[in-house]
Amino acid sequence: MDEPTFLARLRTLPLHPGADGLRDDAALVGGLVVTTDTLVEGVHFLPSDPAGDVAWKLVATNLSDLAAKAAAPEGVTLNYPLSDPAWDSAFLAGLAEVLAAYACPLIGGDTVSLPAGAPRVLTVTAFGRSARLPRRGGARAGDALWVTGTIGDAGAGLAIARGKPGPLALLAAYRRPQPRLAEGLALEPRVTAMTDVSDGLLLDSARMAAASGLAVALDLARAPLSAAYRTFAGDDRPARLRAATAGDDYQLLFALPAGAEPPVPATRVGAFSNGAGLTLHDAGEMLPLPPHLGFRHGA
Amino acid sequence: MDEPTFLARLRTLPLHPGADGLRDDAALVGGLVVTTDTLVEGVHFLPSDPAGDVAWKLVATNLSDLAAKAAAPEGVTLNYPLSDPAWDSAFLAGLAEVLAAYACPLIGGDTVSLPAGAPRVLTVTAFGRSARLPRRGGARAGDALWVTGTIGDAGAGLAIARGKPGPLALLAAYRRPQPRLAEGLALEPRVTAMTDVSDGLLLDSARMAAASGLAVALDLARAPLSAAYRTFAGDDRPARLRAATAGDDYQLLFALPAGAEPPVPATRVGAFSNGAGLTLHDAGEMLPLPPHLGFRHGA
Repeated sequence: MDEPTFLARLRTLPLHPGADGLRDDAALVGGLVVTTDTLVEGVHFLPSDPAGDVAWKLVATNLSDLAAKAAAPEGVTLNYPLSDPAWDSAFLAGLAEVLAAYACPLIGGDTVSLPAGAPRVLTVTAFGRSARLPRRGGARAGDALWVTGTIGDAGAGLAIARGKPGPLALLAAYRRPQPRLAEGLALEPRVTAMTDVSDGLLLDSARMAAASGLAVALDLARAPLSAAYRTFAGDDRPARLRAATAGDDYQLLFALPAGAEPPVPATRVGAFSNGAGLTLHDAGEMLPLPPHLGFRHGA
Repeated sequence: MDEPTFLARLRTLPLHPGADGLRDDAALVGGLVVTTDTLVEGVHFLPSDPAGDVAWKLVATNLSDLAAKAAAPEGVTLNYPLSDPAWDSAFLAGLAEVLAAYACPLIGGDTVSLPAGAPRVLTVTAFGRSARLPRRGGARAGDALWVTGTIGDAGAGLAIARGKPGPLALLAAYRRPQPRLAEGLALEPRVTAMTDVSDGLLLDSARMAAASGLAVALDLARAPLSAAYRTFAGDDRPARLRAATAGDDYQLLFALPAGAEPPVPATRVGAFSNGAGLTLHDAGEMLPLPPHLGFRHGA
């Protein structure tokens, strides 16, 4: 079953009032923001990725969801498949690093064994506290669409992890993403909608528009690229399209009323209007949408 | 790495104050009781188990942990590996049944794809509300040890699921365990310690004693067996030992001050004293401990 079908079926079940109709990456339960992400070996990370980096990414992707909800981390639970001691030790070392980096304690979890040869499947559930929970679907017609940082770095890093020569900074963007927790807290009072860019700028923009019941127009020429990315992949239209559809950026994507300026460094990349769907421009020229708007991890 | 080593390493990380030193099956986070369990195909359930029963068991094992903490379910999150539509549809039907049976809404979750042929790995995290959280480690010297219901039925049901002829009631005990939520709420004002019997009466009794810093003596002759179990497996010492080490019972195991009577049907099976470790008796005769106290799922 594909993900949209499965989600549609889940929505027919009794939903918690804080589930927001399963339209967002986080829920609100008893005053806590709750979000959960699963990483699968061979799907979300490479078997050759260092275990410590897998630990970092597993926690960081969840904290990125908290960042998008303007939540300060309260802690995480971990569901972990025990395997060989060397991998487990390296994982624990990376886990210690990421928890210390974001002052995020461990709450609990579960350990399991997998059948021999099975790919690792790891889950973290993150808990946070938020004054107000910015939703993915809160954008209004006329709002501008903004994104923090640069995009495409992690996608380039994935190519490097797979063997293409390239700068270590891009590899680090793929393996050790930095959740934008401080930016999320600073943005909270001003944004009408917020999410993180986990599956690609185009796909996550389209999802924000759909959740808000609006259309969004995105200007590819404004997509923020790092110097390292330009050196590695170039700055032409195909390079920009790859950056905008690669995923794993873990930047914050947010909507602000027209004319408002964000309190943190960010780039205006588009605008919302009445209607539906995503339209893509490049410095005034309308572009056809690429066959894949983002990285769907096969789901 | 084995589970005790991994847990010992986890305890060196920064722990949330509600994590209770990772000594229990549940944590307390911002007034919510949180517990999480992962089921692995080929480890915790059979590839031939019906998908609807897997959904039931996945939620029920988590709700059993809530029951042991005297918590009323607030909701669950689900981390789910999408696969073939027939399995997914049957899973969704079982999920709808178990959520309705325990008035437990869905909070959110994550869906992933697995590499072809990989065993399914499913996680549920359950949230509950509790007036006071009975801990696994609260027993006092002199307390009696009690258990609700009967034990061994699910272990016999597993043998039946694997092909041995036997009563459907035992198969149902294995595939559709009934979390003792009402019993947990009724017991909460009186117990000094509580947990659920997930890995076997002997193993979970030993864990409660260790967490309480006490010794526990268990009388095998008092282990409560169902009529169906006696018919299927007999009532002799090997049958009782099998029942007490089989796991998957999801009964409540609790400590009460000596002389106190529980407010729900239960059987007194042992007593705590100063010291350490588990001792096993059978109607006055001291028994050597079996090589495995319970079902550790290979971890």
